Amino acid sequence: MLPLQLQPESHVPLYVQLRDQLRALVHTGDLRPGDRIPASRELASQLGIHRTTVANAYAELESEGLIHGHVGRGTFVRAANGTRKFTPPPPPAAEDGGSVRWESLFAGERGEGNLQRLTRSSSPGAISFVMARPDQKHFPLDEFRTCVNTVFAREGARILQMGPSDGYPPLREALLEMFRTEGAPAAPENLLITGGGQQSLDLLSKAFLRPGDAVVLEDPAYTGAISIFNDGRVRCLSVPVRSGLDENETPGLDVGSLEAALSANRVKLIILTPDFHNPTGTSMPVESRRRLLDLAVRHQAPVVEDHVYARLHGRGGELPSLRQLDRANLVIQIDSFSKVAFPGLRIGWIVAPPSVIERLRAVKQATDLHSDQLAQAALAEFTRRGALTRHIARMRRVYADRLTVVQDSLARFMPRETRWTSPTGGMCVWVELPAGFDASELLIHVRERGVDFAPGRYFYCQNPQPNTLRLGFSGVEEPQIRRAIATLADVLKSEMRKRQRVSRRVETGRVALV
Amino acid sequence: MLPLQLQPESHVPLYVQLRDQLRALVHTGDLRPGDRIPASRELASQLGIHRTTVANAYAELESEGLIHGHVGRGTFVRAANGTRKFTPPPPPAAEDGGSVRWESLFAGERGEGNLQRLTRSSSPGAISFVMARPDQKHFPLDEFRTCVNTVFAREGARILQMGPSDGYPPLREALLEMFRTEGAPAAPENLLITGGGQQSLDLLSKAFLRPGDAVVLEDPAYTGAISIFNDGRVRCLSVPVRSGLDENETPGLDVGSLEAALSANRVKLIILTPDFHNPTGTSMPVESRRRLLDLAVRHQAPVVEDHVYARLHGRGGELPSLRQLDRANLVIQIDSFSKVAFPGLRIGWIVAPPSVIERLRAVKQATDLHSDQLAQAALAEFTRRGALTRHIARMRRVYADRLTVVQDSLARFMPRETRWTSPTGGMCVWVELPAGFDASELLIHVRERGVDFAPGRYFYCQNPQPNTLRLGFSGVEEPQIRRAIATLADVLKSEMRKRQRVSRRVETGRVALV
Repeated sequence: MLPLQLQPESHVPLYVQLRDQLRALVHTGDLRPGDRIPASRELASQLGIHRTTVANAYAELESEGLIHGHVGRGTFVRAANGTRKFTPPPPPAAEDGGSVRWESLFAGERGEGNLQRLTRSSSPGAISFVMARPDQKHFPLDEFRTCVNTVFAREGARILQMGPSDGYPPLREALLEMFRTEGAPAAPENLLITGGGQQSLDLLSKAFLRPGDAVVLEDPAYTGAISIFNDGRVRCLSVPVRSGLDENETPGLDVGSLEAALSANRVKLIILTPDFHNPTGTSMPVESRRRLLDLAVRHQAPVVEDHVYARLHGRGGELPSLRQLDRANLVIQIDSFSKVAFPGLRIGWIVAPPSVIERLRAVKQATDLHSDQLAQAALAEFTRRGALTRHIARMRRVYADRLTVVQDSLARFMPRETRWTSPTGGMCVWVELPAGFDASELLIHVRERGVDFAPGRYFYCQNPQPNTLRLGFSGVEEPQIRRAIATLADVLKSEMRKRQRVSRRVETGRVALV
Repeated sequence: MLPLQLQPESHVPLYVQLRDQLRALVHTGDLRPGDRIPASRELASQLGIHRTTVANAYAELESEGLIHGHVGRGTFVRAANGTRKFTPPPPPAAEDGGSVRWESLFAGERGEGNLQRLTRSSSPGAISFVMARPDQKHFPLDEFRTCVNTVFAREGARILQMGPSDGYPPLREALLEMFRTEGAPAAPENLLITGGGQQSLDLLSKAFLRPGDAVVLEDPAYTGAISIFNDGRVRCLSVPVRSGLDENETPGLDVGSLEAALSANRVKLIILTPDFHNPTGTSMPVESRRRLLDLAVRHQAPVVEDHVYARLHGRGGELPSLRQLDRANLVIQIDSFSKVAFPGLRIGWIVAPPSVIERLRAVKQATDLHSDQLAQAALAEFTRRGALTRHIARMRRVYADRLTVVQDSLARFMPRETRWTSPTGGMCVWVELPAGFDASELLIHVRERGVDFAPGRYFYCQNPQPNTLRLGFSGVEEPQIRRAIATLADVLKSEMRKRQRVSRRVETGRVALV
């Protein structure tokens, strides 16, 4: 089903919204040359709108040369710019030149995931807000290289041999020492080293979930989490994350909605990012954290706390983590070197009650035996000698400065009708365009001017809000941030003017509409 | 259910077999202090033997102080040597000091897997045949360290940043070049980099299998494969691997039994290791490979070829791989650096038709985003500069010499009633003890004399043959091989003498038996 979301309350006509969203899907590659698009009757009933509205949108797209009706076969997306000749898709039996019909053997239907779309969508050379990841220009490469060579000198060939499934012992020790320093101690039997945050979620999914089980996910949420749980055919109960933009609204996961979800469902896991939530950047106040833990105890639902951004608090203080507030031993905390050090090394960890760790260790072993020994050893050395703490302190300042420039630039350039979150750390800011605007459509024009961002639609389990977008600012330098946000604002204002003209023409009866 | 397998045809009395197997389970840690063992009535019905036989075995074990009956509660394993006081297990509600009953939340029952038992079982200081892994004393550490530093110099901080899910491009190129050199070319769209062989199986399981689906696995098979498919609640159809020890027996997977399994079941994947099979060391002749591929085509069942040992052909030539013989594009080949280079780095790959790779890439991304960039880059450099080829050539000779010593020592020392396979490469030899002997029981005595091996029971999906064992010889130097096999033979002969005495006493009526 196409990810379309119309907003009837908007002043933008429905057929324009639909046309623009379909065009955006083609430009982002979600719809590709040769793809069949639904018949107008079918799409109309799916969206709950009149068939003529769909027909109007299709007619415009056909006149633009973007789609093409093929008698008796349906409507297809045309090749871009007419450079490639349109050919209807080949019969599936000939696939891969072999005798096996692979599609019939795979475990279930599977479209391309949002995670793939997101990571593929970055355009080279652009000022890119697409990803939420550290700035490699600030990686302390020499210091890290020294750590690697120290490991070779001390450990010798042993470091290239197989290792234990629960992690390289010196890395385990270095992390436990770090936890003590941070005032959140843990015992060795509480700790498992993993291949990063994504693998931690995958291990939890394997250990806890069967098809049909229900989990609570944030709405919007981390794209990688959505991928895992969709693949596992798990029921995702989306609980809204409040941006805190409306007056009297508490930012972060809506605890009232969580309570409703827990009351109505048997929930196996509550998965959330209380600090600098991805994609919105919001943090849950302590009072919400306490209420959430109370609910979790009452409903016997374990809480998976994604802690990967928590050390990146910029302005404003740190809040106690759910793990620190937990008195009932039901928090499973996942964490990683990816945001605070080097994502290319794929090392993370899980802190949880011993019986959970024991189960996860068995799952980890059956998944990939253990994580890379050299990366674990080098990160252990990097942590042990204080380089990690120093690097985090430095990056906290760098990102805090960038965040200030994001906020200032948004305030300075964006049109009044736009809103955005005000995180105090982390790597992202969430922007809401005026209702009826589609960030994917806007992105086409913004990209032409050398700027890239992540449309909000990639962060929803269901019902994507097309008028949202994420600015991952951590990898962009201050002058570029300013320039890019000015460009974004410029394009948005120009689109708003265009739509106002259309809207006026509609009001004065110069366009036939359904 | 306890992994017990009695052999009624043996001259060893059933109660002795049962006693010895239970004792072995305690010594290997499969049964631990405080574990409850089944009531004699229950175990008797499970094994299809008389209850008094079980009672006799239990009585002996109780008189040895190994187990202990607790009125109204059952029979439990005692603490070892009486050093730890026996306490009945605590009520599960108090677990982890918290309020959540984790066991009730996990996805299904799950005992400790054989993979864990196997990797945990090695005793420090012993001459160990437990693992099938490369010898780290021969790792070309200086050359590898140079590769790592070359990568840092050339790539800089970029190598610590996130990378593509299908692998680091220079590693992909280096592998494709190696495939060309080896006469088994592949295109870029046929290749996915993974986190090693275990992860490749996990990705395939996720891409293809749902609970209840059937796969063909070898019997015996790689322990890690058994773990994955058991965890996924997949039906494993065990097809025997012939040792080639009986006259006129073709070694390798029994193609006749495979045909029967394919005819009776809808099989989603056939998973096998045609070259130097783990654990038996056998290789399938070319004719069997061709017949297998024909069957796979006829039944539309994809073949997963585990190719990790194939480059380690010692004496004797290489055979064409299933991928090379495949004309129908239904072979998925998994391979890895773990056996030919460094298992601590966890990098492997999959070669398969494009639509399979496309699906697996999406699964890989949702599993752990991508594999370690530094390890991939260093291995790319190691491969590109020919160091991998040189290392493989060197290790082939080292392992071939060790294999010769294994074969010579077995022939020289082992009692006539023992049999073993004669691989021409790889890392393991499979030994069959006389019927009625339990390799786990033998291991207790062998360990006391400083030698360690892997009991065969760890390599079976069902119906383990207790009289088998695996000698993973690749990590043991020649004089140690000789000494260890002499010890093994010595212990075995002594056990055979003991049993003959018991047997004679039984025949002369001096022991009461059921």
